[in-house]
Amino acid sequence: MLNKKRLLTPGPTPLPEEARLALARDMIHHRKQEFQNIMLAVQEKARVLFGTREPVLPLACSGTGAMTAAVYSLFKPGDPVLVVNSGKFGERWVEIAKSRGLDTDNLELPWGEYVSPEVAAERLNKKSYKGILVQVCETSTGAILPVKEIGEIKGSALLVADGISAVGVSPCPMDKWRIDCLLTGSQKGLMLPPGLALLALSQKAWKTAGDIEPGCFYFNLPKERKALEKGQTSFTTPVNLIVGLKASLDLIGDPSRIYRKQWALTALVRRGAAAAGLELFIHKNYAWGVTSIKMPKGVDGQKILKIAETRFGVYMAGGQDRLKGKIVRLGHMGWVDWSDCLAGLFALTEALREESGFIAEPGWSVAALEAYEKALREGCP
Amino acid sequence: MLNKKRLLTPGPTPLPEEARLALARDMIHHRKQEFQNIMLAVQEKARVLFGTREPVLPLACSGTGAMTAAVYSLFKPGDPVLVVNSGKFGERWVEIAKSRGLDTDNLELPWGEYVSPEVAAERLNKKSYKGILVQVCETSTGAILPVKEIGEIKGSALLVADGISAVGVSPCPMDKWRIDCLLTGSQKGLMLPPGLALLALSQKAWKTAGDIEPGCFYFNLPKERKALEKGQTSFTTPVNLIVGLKASLDLIGDPSRIYRKQWALTALVRRGAAAAGLELFIHKNYAWGVTSIKMPKGVDGQKILKIAETRFGVYMAGGQDRLKGKIVRLGHMGWVDWSDCLAGLFALTEALREESGFIAEPGWSVAALEAYEKALREGCP
Repeated sequence: MLNKKRLLTPGPTPLPEEARLALARDMIHHRKQEFQNIMLAVQEKARVLFGTREPVLPLACSGTGAMTAAVYSLFKPGDPVLVVNSGKFGERWVEIAKSRGLDTDNLELPWGEYVSPEVAAERLNKKSYKGILVQVCETSTGAILPVKEIGEIKGSALLVADGISAVGVSPCPMDKWRIDCLLTGSQKGLMLPPGLALLALSQKAWKTAGDIEPGCFYFNLPKERKALEKGQTSFTTPVNLIVGLKASLDLIGDPSRIYRKQWALTALVRRGAAAAGLELFIHKNYAWGVTSIKMPKGVDGQKILKIAETRFGVYMAGGQDRLKGKIVRLGHMGWVDWSDCLAGLFALTEALREESGFIAEPGWSVAALEAYEKALREGCP
Repeated sequence: MLNKKRLLTPGPTPLPEEARLALARDMIHHRKQEFQNIMLAVQEKARVLFGTREPVLPLACSGTGAMTAAVYSLFKPGDPVLVVNSGKFGERWVEIAKSRGLDTDNLELPWGEYVSPEVAAERLNKKSYKGILVQVCETSTGAILPVKEIGEIKGSALLVADGISAVGVSPCPMDKWRIDCLLTGSQKGLMLPPGLALLALSQKAWKTAGDIEPGCFYFNLPKERKALEKGQTSFTTPVNLIVGLKASLDLIGDPSRIYRKQWALTALVRRGAAAAGLELFIHKNYAWGVTSIKMPKGVDGQKILKIAETRFGVYMAGGQDRLKGKIVRLGHMGWVDWSDCLAGLFALTEALREESGFIAEPGWSVAALEAYEKALREGCP
């Protein structure tokens, strides 16, 4: 009873009441008209969010399932692909591509380092790639990758973008950026529990998918596309997540409102952390839904997380794999607002004080709030 | 406001309030202790329901996803398997096995016909199969297949059983019946929305899975097993379905209570339909969660469904593919009781009267209720 629980991880995120009530609705049958109407209404709004005129397929799987579906549907064993890899989810692209038997080139950068479009261009000139696999936002570091710029230089390769922490968080207009496959999961910007993925293909990618025997029976995109024309899926769909998706897309409304909010929350967290005397992990091209904060020398981030949880009820994420203990990731996507973000920063700075005697610079929280309001006024880039 | 909606399809099924409230809970993080405790509690009860001492893996997919996971994890391209196929989901085994490149023998029977263990034994003697793929309950026809008997004669083959419409509906004790892989989906006996599958392997099947390179990156059973030891999954799990699963497993309690109820509901529907003058589609080895009723000559079952929906708010399922229009499937698994089943039969007989002038024999509903109470008293076989 002392603390409310505040979930400030970069997915799953807290759920708005509208979504929670929708999730609790009694079951309806996925082959009946009532459900099909919901599916078609969702479809219209999902296309706006994805920035595409192509269908947005619902898949019954996690984000990794959608990444698998993309690779197994768009490439044949032996096809050469380039992975732009600067974090844990870049590595996941490599693993998936190798499992499909692709000729996988790994453009590996130190985690969190900015992938310059020039470096990408140089690699793209060396080989005739069938595909480029990239994250819009690398959740493990909190960096944004230059997907738009890669879209301009991709040549004949299909650009496959993991938008799991980006769709509904920061702009990644699929058609405009020349993305050939954009995918996301339900538990991030869409403010739902995990278990549903969304995936869209460009016309060019649809042509390729139509020519290739899918690598996995469960992920048959042309078959899903055909079913979707009737508001259906080929196999049983997570009905209540689709019903919830309608509620969350209704709540989002015009996506530009979400981007403005996410930009302002990012300004709040970044300014607050910096003003308190903490070092940010990403300096350029940072994510709009998660901010990675470096731990001072000698401080174990895992301990900091534990203190924030037990003393303040604030749940943040740590670094993964090689970043474990070295950063804390404060998630601020989904159903969070300015006060939640301040709570996250308070819990973080107080936990650091308890663990290591760290003293936050006075006035950091007011500076954070000012940065937030300024960003809200000025709008996002 | 005139009618409540009654979902009497063989999945998804209606949801109990306990599950609905659990589904609506705010999100918790799948990598934190609170969630891991829930996962481990679920694990214990799921093993009782599956009748196994082996782990029961949660997979973020539909039932077809779990069927894919089984085939792609237990067999290599070229492996000979036998599919016992007497309906739409038997055909799905064939499709999945072929997509994995298996040497697939199709023991195809007319839909709904009883597969005798003798016929199965004869086929099994002809070839040294690596696997036998079968349904415990063939949902498309409402038949139970002789899985227990096949378990006795399977030889060295792995027995892979689709328990999607059976687990939590009628007994299929995995270890006792010598099943090597049993799987189910969340939207049937487990009284949850679709989107979560459960899958367990025998020790022998685990050995095989450990020796084979999985055919699809998303379905890596040995990796999932390792994660589960810590109450985890390798990729993001449908958190709220796991929380809901705990609620529904708590509600189920001792599985024998459910079997008794399902047996009695089956007696009600079968006796009621027969007493009204309708013909049952399956005469021997019928399912305990869905009853298929033949349409009188010249009557289109699809029209009957539509009348039942619009006049009475009762949603039943039709025949699939070659049975379309020829049968109506009255689902009585999950969160349904005697009164729901009577409502289904009333809607069915009245729709038949409207459409074709069919007159139900008087007294059928009392006969149905008597059969129900007698079955409850005497218990299931």
